[in-house]
Amino acid sequence: MTEELEKIQIELAASLTKNNRKKFRKLFLSLHGYEQSQLFENFSLAQRKIIYSYLTPEELANVFDDTEEDPVEAGKYLDEMPPAYVARLLREMYMDNVVDILADMRPLKRRKYLNLMQTGEAAQVRNLIHYEDESAGSLMTTEFIAVKEDLSVGSAMHQVKREAQEAELITYIYVIDEAGVLVGVLSVRDLITHPDDEAIKDIMITRVLAVDVNEDQEAIAEQVRDYNFVAIPVVDEAEKIVGIITVDDIIDVIDEESAEDYSHLAGVDTQTISHNPFQTAFKRLPWLITLLFLGMLTATLINHFDTLLSQMSVLAVFISLITGTAGNAGTQSLAVAVRRLAMNSHLKITRLLLNEVATGIIIGVVTGVCVWLMVGFWKQDLVLGGIVGAAMASAIFVANLAGSIIPIGMEKLGVDPAVASGPFISTLSDLTSVLIYFNIAQYFLQMYGH
Amino acid sequence: MTEELEKIQIELAASLTKNNRKKFRKLFLSLHGYEQSQLFENFSLAQRKIIYSYLTPEELANVFDDTEEDPVEAGKYLDEMPPAYVARLLREMYMDNVVDILADMRPLKRRKYLNLMQTGEAAQVRNLIHYEDESAGSLMTTEFIAVKEDLSVGSAMHQVKREAQEAELITYIYVIDEAGVLVGVLSVRDLITHPDDEAIKDIMITRVLAVDVNEDQEAIAEQVRDYNFVAIPVVDEAEKIVGIITVDDIIDVIDEESAEDYSHLAGVDTQTISHNPFQTAFKRLPWLITLLFLGMLTATLINHFDTLLSQMSVLAVFISLITGTAGNAGTQSLAVAVRRLAMNSHLKITRLLLNEVATGIIIGVVTGVCVWLMVGFWKQDLVLGGIVGAAMASAIFVANLAGSIIPIGMEKLGVDPAVASGPFISTLSDLTSVLIYFNIAQYFLQMYGH
Repeated sequence: MTEELEKIQIELAASLTKNNRKKFRKLFLSLHGYEQSQLFENFSLAQRKIIYSYLTPEELANVFDDTEEDPVEAGKYLDEMPPAYVARLLREMYMDNVVDILADMRPLKRRKYLNLMQTGEAAQVRNLIHYEDESAGSLMTTEFIAVKEDLSVGSAMHQVKREAQEAELITYIYVIDEAGVLVGVLSVRDLITHPDDEAIKDIMITRVLAVDVNEDQEAIAEQVRDYNFVAIPVVDEAEKIVGIITVDDIIDVIDEESAEDYSHLAGVDTQTISHNPFQTAFKRLPWLITLLFLGMLTATLINHFDTLLSQMSVLAVFISLITGTAGNAGTQSLAVAVRRLAMNSHLKITRLLLNEVATGIIIGVVTGVCVWLMVGFWKQDLVLGGIVGAAMASAIFVANLAGSIIPIGMEKLGVDPAVASGPFISTLSDLTSVLIYFNIAQYFLQMYGH
Repeated sequence: MTEELEKIQIELAASLTKNNRKKFRKLFLSLHGYEQSQLFENFSLAQRKIIYSYLTPEELANVFDDTEEDPVEAGKYLDEMPPAYVARLLREMYMDNVVDILADMRPLKRRKYLNLMQTGEAAQVRNLIHYEDESAGSLMTTEFIAVKEDLSVGSAMHQVKREAQEAELITYIYVIDEAGVLVGVLSVRDLITHPDDEAIKDIMITRVLAVDVNEDQEAIAEQVRDYNFVAIPVVDEAEKIVGIITVDDIIDVIDEESAEDYSHLAGVDTQTISHNPFQTAFKRLPWLITLLFLGMLTATLINHFDTLLSQMSVLAVFISLITGTAGNAGTQSLAVAVRRLAMNSHLKITRLLLNEVATGIIIGVVTGVCVWLMVGFWKQDLVLGGIVGAAMASAIFVANLAGSIIPIGMEKLGVDPAVASGPFISTLSDLTSVLIYFNIAQYFLQMYGH
């Protein structure tokens, strides 16, 4: 909360204590819904109960529509309100937000609230709740404006005026035929600027981009972003318009998806915030312990080479240098591959792989030569430098390739490639790097009998 | 490009070859601007020259306004067109897009195009070009609708009708006083639903959220997202409205910023795509080589303990296990800290740190005990297991703490904490982990005289 809002919070709390309904309303209603929701969350139960008597359900609906709070939390507030108040609140809120809140409730409680709603609306909510999470159906709202194709601009304008207050967004007016099939779209701008007697049919755009009700949110977000839409219509299998997805929900999707990718790359959920260190720890431990087993494999591999190590204990000095650098290169190539797969569905896989092979060779050779010289001069032993350099070059090459092949393979298997994490790639590359390093060392030792 | 578009491309190319202007226009103009721009980019120079004669500058402006292409590329097309055509094209395009293209040109060329424009518009472009990259000024467009506060709804509607075609977005109508100071806002919905004789002053919202022309794009994106705006007004130091930023540009900012964070975490630029492996390699090498030096430090540290290692070569077996796991824990805590710093500017730092300390202890102890038992049983040596387990626990604790302290410190120093990368944290933690491991081993050895 900004400082300004904190001050307002204090003023509002004071007017609640003094039972100053008028002052509270004046100040509170001057704010934007998002600000109101921030303030609302900070009031105590006793304060909220007063607020329910100060604000109409219509006014509170505005607060709930603009909240960023978890639907579960928002649902808890409903229990505090008188049933008749809740009924009106749910009617005033946008359908997509009502669904979000009710979807997260236990069935028994949900039924209670559905019973409070009007039959038609309750049926809509029941319908919407059944759409799969992250599908168009779960994102859409049913408050849109659709006009019949045989209307004139004037009569369409009349309908828009009538329905404008209910609709979530009136930038686009959708045009439907007798059966409700989406046949065109026009913008409110077109309605305003065309003469009243023109036919909607003549000014509408007939090439309407719509998404299927079961389409995945990530693909929808991409379309809205590319086409610069403010909303996109949702149609069922019969091409009938059933809802619209507005750009504010698309922004949330984009945020959510990018936070997911970020979390995957780090191998930890960065979205759910907990202030309980036990919860935090047990969220991170599964990955760490899984990778620990992979790490133990690497340890047994090094153990396998114990004779070599006792013959030439200097080899131990460079283990972490090689595994670390290869892991870094692997993480880089993983991130590039994941992003490119995400951004371009028509990507030529072979081209990506060939590019990575070539890149891996270049990076490996450059780094390998650097290491060869550094170790060679430091230890005054160009053979040892050669072992470390050659191992480094090969380990980087392999890690780099693994960093692209693994996400590509996952994509081919239908798994989201973003799930492959940096920690996984670097732990895996520890294993391959050690294998390469000791084999090269053994080979050199036999060749040069160090 | 989708398959459908690929087919259309072939059809369009055919109509260009056959000089079938009518067919080309009908098909091309039935598409959305974004689709048109995808097709346009795929035509050859010869084909584009025909297109310039087929399409009016107004029609082509639509293509350029919706392109996702690099402004540099878009700028190159201008050189192919007749000067009079360019002049009209630039006049028809939205100001923010014109600025993007001209800003990336060499000064001489830019002056040539500015001279083609009308004096007033050229002055506006010159003004806008000077705003800093990533500031509100560089994102905004000057095509918005502002009405005087003393108008009636009816006369405001008249003005909107007149200016609607020029404006980039008419969802919000801004209200200004005599001096041009932003005093209110209303939605086109309000205009439509209120009677003509009502005063704008009475129906406008006076609490308008606006951003300063120099404000950073990341903060603006946050506001638009939180408040669910479709556009946000931009004001100068005198509170005069100078432009608006539309939500489509905000989505691009969000995408850009999240891609940046992702890139930073992986220690590689994942945005610029190059098909030249040399370019790709030289983009990744700087970080790798920098971290290589840090890795060399770790190597010299291990080297420092060579007597210990030759006494007890089994220690080498667990180096990569400890450094790897600590690195993974550090990457996790880094990602969590970076995200939390980015999402919440009023975050209590002490609380975040204390939480991480506690989390680090829990993760360290759990992992340490696992490793103690695993190594103890495997090697039938609980003292060795104890060394590895204790080292693991401490190394994880330190890496975990470093993962939060480093981004917090960077934030305090005014550096974007997202710059701290996973590879950096894991390479740094290699160093601390090795230091901890060998010191603990040495201590145990002295105690128990292994």
